[in-house]
Amino acid sequence: MTSTNQSAHASGAPVVVVVGDGQLARMMHTEAIELGLSLRVLASAPDSSAAQVAHDVVLGDYRERADLSAVAAGADAVTFDHEHVPNELLDELISQGINVQPQPSALIYAQDKLHMRTKLQEIGAPVPPFSAITSVEDARAFSESVGGKVCLKSRRGGYDGKGVWFPKNDEELNSLVTELLDASVDLMAEKLIPFERELSAMVARTPSGQTQPWPVVQSRQSGGICVEAVAPAPDMSDELRQRCEELSARVATELGVTGVLAVELFEYRDEDGQPAISVNELAMRPHNTGHWTQDGCVTSQFEQHLRAVLDLPLGDTRTVAPVTVMANVLGGEEDGTPYERVAELMRRFPEAKVHLYGKDVRPGRKIGHVNIVGASEDSVAEVRERAQQAARFLATGSF
Amino acid sequence: MTSTNQSAHASGAPVVVVVGDGQLARMMHTEAIELGLSLRVLASAPDSSAAQVAHDVVLGDYRERADLSAVAAGADAVTFDHEHVPNELLDELISQGINVQPQPSALIYAQDKLHMRTKLQEIGAPVPPFSAITSVEDARAFSESVGGKVCLKSRRGGYDGKGVWFPKNDEELNSLVTELLDASVDLMAEKLIPFERELSAMVARTPSGQTQPWPVVQSRQSGGICVEAVAPAPDMSDELRQRCEELSARVATELGVTGVLAVELFEYRDEDGQPAISVNELAMRPHNTGHWTQDGCVTSQFEQHLRAVLDLPLGDTRTVAPVTVMANVLGGEEDGTPYERVAELMRRFPEAKVHLYGKDVRPGRKIGHVNIVGASEDSVAEVRERAQQAARFLATGSF
Repeated sequence: MTSTNQSAHASGAPVVVVVGDGQLARMMHTEAIELGLSLRVLASAPDSSAAQVAHDVVLGDYRERADLSAVAAGADAVTFDHEHVPNELLDELISQGINVQPQPSALIYAQDKLHMRTKLQEIGAPVPPFSAITSVEDARAFSESVGGKVCLKSRRGGYDGKGVWFPKNDEELNSLVTELLDASVDLMAEKLIPFERELSAMVARTPSGQTQPWPVVQSRQSGGICVEAVAPAPDMSDELRQRCEELSARVATELGVTGVLAVELFEYRDEDGQPAISVNELAMRPHNTGHWTQDGCVTSQFEQHLRAVLDLPLGDTRTVAPVTVMANVLGGEEDGTPYERVAELMRRFPEAKVHLYGKDVRPGRKIGHVNIVGASEDSVAEVRERAQQAARFLATGSF
Repeated sequence: MTSTNQSAHASGAPVVVVVGDGQLARMMHTEAIELGLSLRVLASAPDSSAAQVAHDVVLGDYRERADLSAVAAGADAVTFDHEHVPNELLDELISQGINVQPQPSALIYAQDKLHMRTKLQEIGAPVPPFSAITSVEDARAFSESVGGKVCLKSRRGGYDGKGVWFPKNDEELNSLVTELLDASVDLMAEKLIPFERELSAMVARTPSGQTQPWPVVQSRQSGGICVEAVAPAPDMSDELRQRCEELSARVATELGVTGVLAVELFEYRDEDGQPAISVNELAMRPHNTGHWTQDGCVTSQFEQHLRAVLDLPLGDTRTVAPVTVMANVLGGEEDGTPYERVAELMRRFPEAKVHLYGKDVRPGRKIGHVNIVGASEDSVAEVRERAQQAARFLATGSF
């Protein structure tokens, strides 16, 4: 544990503490600098993505009471780049008068998928049929009720495709459930949605209750990991766009979310063949599907998150281009770092906005992303192709 | 002097050292973060604008050989946020194999206005008639040659209106020259240009010789301090735009500039009543008249400067909006900090991009700027008005 560094904070400037040291905290620091702020970061290692670039870094463990208290001292707001801080420790901070945003009363819905589904159903948000699974019998009954189309999920801790299973038949479901319950995994099941694509409806909300959505985007996952976001989502009726934006604002308000909320959605056809949406996941922080806002929007998700947790009025979320595509740079099997490839990338793609996280390469690890803006809606296909090529080249050295 | 901090630099990432700790270094760090870099900053104080936000801060004096050597150790490039490092010290670094960009052979033209004027004349760039002034007789002869329309300048060290004098008559000229020569100020004089407006033509150049201009902007000074930039410069023929862009690239190439170059220009009417331009000043670093690129261009001047000094291919400089206006926030006489005003500012101007430098307020000091983008060329007047109002409010608390 190093001590906090008061010289990092301008006279009169609010101090925002970010618990977490990954790329989301790193990119919050980018925006903090321009707003005249500087973050204090609780980091697990001095060379972590955010610790590399911030001035006021406290080394410690987000699961330790003493470390959280130390980093939070004097903060105008405490926020997060993940949802895994134990709520009982956050409750203690709040009882000591610390301004924690978002609060555990909201975070619980991002931490526990069963709580989330139950709450969403309660407020009338579209969710697939679901059930808690505490026995093989529960699983069998649920499977029967949805015609065998079952997705099994760990209630807690899953991300990037981890903690989700797609049993092919009841036999596989039974053995999975037995195995996971034996390992003390809390389980739920839900009906598989035969979705046509994934969408993400993002919004920011302040403690005072102002909400400001971004245009809904189309996202694409591969192996459970986000690989692309296209903004705004192409080929979508204004009515459906509006429904997505209103849904995100309603979820933020009803669940008491503050800061940035990502509502990941499935788009599918309902029984009448009409486009319909269903909530897949919630994230209460800046989100991979919002990285495009850095280069495609007046106000990025990182700036908006800082404004929101400080209860400042929210910024304009108009786009600055007809289309923006974000492609993730995922570590490949190849030797070498993206830094060896960036010159050639810049030569071939002068329009590409390169965002690298300062992270060591591991296969499949998110080490950066590329944003490209297009000059017309007609350019979506071309911009997608270029963004994907650019990201692939940074990751692997090949186009 | 604190030691350098290696954990600030990602494995494989180039290390860029910035000599200087002001807002230009601060905003370079913003872009460095997104490129996956982190700067090492030579700062005069731990709470200076750039030192607040960077992780790897070396405290020291840019006029001290030992401090420069310490901060430059292991750097992939050494660059600056001002032009005042003694050239003999930079020459020593270069002789030790350090990659200094821009080099003293170019910096000399930004440091000494007489060298600059002489060189520009030599390459055929438009400059007003000028002369070295080493005696009252020199001054009298020059004044006679230009019909008494004389501007007197200190050859070195002037900025923000300092080091420039406008004698009203020969008597005033004589006493000024006598006084300044007695004070060992190196002087030059040039013919006053009856300009209609000021322009700024900015360009970046790499050591390999690639140049990439930005659209020329209209700038406005008050008391010698930049207060506004409108991009692109309105009401300008394509021919004149192109002439400005070509001029900036030619100056960068002929003077061997690397990194960002600002060519400040006067626009005036020639003897035939046609629009003409004349070079006023050069700056070899990101420049106040380029701050609009942060929110109005695909590639900002701060990102481009980093790319250029690392000899990376330069980024696209297309605008992302038909008009962008930058207004400076200059410290007022009022009590209080901009942080007390920012909530009200954000409520009234959700579209404003607020950039604050973490600097204590002093009257007239540049403490931040506001960028606003407009949706159409017709909106120039409205966007100018809003940007000025926003900046004034942050500075003074009144609209």
